[in-house]
Amino acid sequence: MAGPLAGYRVIDVTQMLSGPMATMILGDQGADVIKVEPPKTGDLTRAFSSSGIPPTFLMINRNKRSVAINLKEPQGVELLKQMVADADVFVQNFRPGTVERMGIGDDDLRRVNPNLIYVSISGFGESGPYVKKRVYDPVIQALSGLTDVQRDQETGRPHMMRLVIPDKVTSLTAAQAITAALLARERTGKGQHVRLAMLDAVVSFVWPEGMAAQTIVRDDRREAGESEKRRDLLFETTDGFITTGAMSNKEWEGLVRALKQPQWLEDPRFQTPAGRMKNAGVRLELMAEVLKTRSSAEWLARLDAEQVPCAPALRRDEVMHNEQVIANELIVESEHPHVGRMRMPRPPARFEETPAELRLPAPALGEHTQAVLKEFGVSAEQLAELQAADII
Amino acid sequence: MAGPLAGYRVIDVTQMLSGPMATMILGDQGADVIKVEPPKTGDLTRAFSSSGIPPTFLMINRNKRSVAINLKEPQGVELLKQMVADADVFVQNFRPGTVERMGIGDDDLRRVNPNLIYVSISGFGESGPYVKKRVYDPVIQALSGLTDVQRDQETGRPHMMRLVIPDKVTSLTAAQAITAALLARERTGKGQHVRLAMLDAVVSFVWPEGMAAQTIVRDDRREAGESEKRRDLLFETTDGFITTGAMSNKEWEGLVRALKQPQWLEDPRFQTPAGRMKNAGVRLELMAEVLKTRSSAEWLARLDAEQVPCAPALRRDEVMHNEQVIANELIVESEHPHVGRMRMPRPPARFEETPAELRLPAPALGEHTQAVLKEFGVSAEQLAELQAADII
Repeated sequence: MAGPLAGYRVIDVTQMLSGPMATMILGDQGADVIKVEPPKTGDLTRAFSSSGIPPTFLMINRNKRSVAINLKEPQGVELLKQMVADADVFVQNFRPGTVERMGIGDDDLRRVNPNLIYVSISGFGESGPYVKKRVYDPVIQALSGLTDVQRDQETGRPHMMRLVIPDKVTSLTAAQAITAALLARERTGKGQHVRLAMLDAVVSFVWPEGMAAQTIVRDDRREAGESEKRRDLLFETTDGFITTGAMSNKEWEGLVRALKQPQWLEDPRFQTPAGRMKNAGVRLELMAEVLKTRSSAEWLARLDAEQVPCAPALRRDEVMHNEQVIANELIVESEHPHVGRMRMPRPPARFEETPAELRLPAPALGEHTQAVLKEFGVSAEQLAELQAADII
Repeated sequence: MAGPLAGYRVIDVTQMLSGPMATMILGDQGADVIKVEPPKTGDLTRAFSSSGIPPTFLMINRNKRSVAINLKEPQGVELLKQMVADADVFVQNFRPGTVERMGIGDDDLRRVNPNLIYVSISGFGESGPYVKKRVYDPVIQALSGLTDVQRDQETGRPHMMRLVIPDKVTSLTAAQAITAALLARERTGKGQHVRLAMLDAVVSFVWPEGMAAQTIVRDDRREAGESEKRRDLLFETTDGFITTGAMSNKEWEGLVRALKQPQWLEDPRFQTPAGRMKNAGVRLELMAEVLKTRSSAEWLARLDAEQVPCAPALRRDEVMHNEQVIANELIVESEHPHVGRMRMPRPPARFEETPAELRLPAPALGEHTQAVLKEFGVSAEQLAELQAADII
């Protein structure tokens, strides 16, 4: 058996990031993901690079086949329905109301496949005051509290996290939900509609520790706490940056030995985990003063020897060369027919019996139109007609 | 039917964040999650607050029952095996090698339940140079490139993202993988071992756009690009911060009208999306100059009227009061027997036929020891003996 989802077929009309990355995970695990794209432009993100296929597109559309169908024409919609009739999952991330206008809403598709799992990914949900607003990553970051979490501690200015966290958290959440709906269907025989709003996925993600001050109602007027104001756990060395820290007494003692500052063990402020937490500001400044006197390699060797948590702050181009990343065989190289040699992480979860793997490179627009439609019973004659009519 | 995972039983010996948040998702969706904790201390995170049960613990341990068992004693291990024999999933996040020493490794448990899904969540993987290192969130942030993504654009200093992103991304990845393994087992009848390293989950999460410069091998010496150096999309107003931005020509024209700067439409630098991207630095500074002259509410009304993506940068205590968050019924209040009224987001994915929901508050340590062990066939007499021997 290939991946755990081998044998399931997913019809995916999503574009951009959150939808495609969700179906990438399903494809990684063996599902047959058919990416349906508009014939002229394809997925909008194909055009995000002036110098060829964008790297992001290449990663999040791996393990998929591409079929170009014009869904603005009734014949295109009929073709889609023919495919959905023989599929397990349909995923869309159009703005609310669009699929109904296109004739590919839940009712329309359930008529051809009563047990379909119909998945709708939206920015804000399917009703409410923001339902017509356009959604981009910064909008969800600003609304979900992410930019407040990253607020500058001196000036109070909010800051973006410079990674598209909202889209990608939504992808992970959606992939799990789709898998759960497939599992429920194995037992009940029934499909269903699964709806997911980015806003909801991201607030749920921020909440556990990010909204700790908002969780217990009677604590509402509690101060945000001093931990908000202290520096982070990155320290400059003579040749770079490292992170280190100590939670338990044992780790603290190890850190003191590694930094050769035995007087800290006598310091009444640092005797207990609670004391070290309370005096984190001064403690971290003292550590920073010491750590900036030697090289990263020297400190990391000493800290490792004392079993204190530590790591270099790697630049992105260093990550793939890190010894543990290499030991994990995490980054795999593959050949893409158009861009050549590329590297990506393998699927992170390792299934002993049903391995997930890279099977297919990201497809060219419409690369599999003919092959896939033949599988769904479209004849050579029909294919020629559809092509002549600019439907495919 | 309750949630999509109703009827599955998960034995969870994980502590801290990544494991418990993964099984929270399964519990939210109806699985019977039994949290097995050491009798004296419980999950380490129970002690992370001096003023009662920490809010984070309360959220990520909802929808679980707690059973206190001393796994350092052979009788405790036997009890665990008795439970595993009648369960579907076992999840552990001890350091590599620990479960084998404890007698609860894959081989040990598969002997009592051949079709078990055995899940191991580790920091770095189960072999390699870092396998014995302690893992905390900052360590994975530093190694995965997250701190490089957040690098200060003036000084080059790396920065932490102030949210425990590595643990939580691992949780989402693990919950999906466990669900996929359950799905595979429904069809093959076979359980398996699923292994997931935080490092792998996080590098995979960072990669799509964060490692774009590392994806295509021949591009390796390409500059990181100007987008690295420009300000982010948060703008100060007279009374706060908002985000706004325009991708398409239509959105750009709307933004120009909202900001009443018609001369920008004539500016040769801003005629096309590519031009606006190339001149993002100066364009964003010009926007900032204008936006700081009026209030957030005034700008948001104008931008909304022109259908330009925009949002206020909410403080964390404002998120639950946002009108769309309210419309989504995202934040639900519940009563916890020990801490009183609390609020949390409901499970984000909405299953039409098998709704996921809050059923149980986070348990007190060992709250369900007697009830659960009775379900697994332990007699009242045995329970008394186990208690007398400090096993439960």
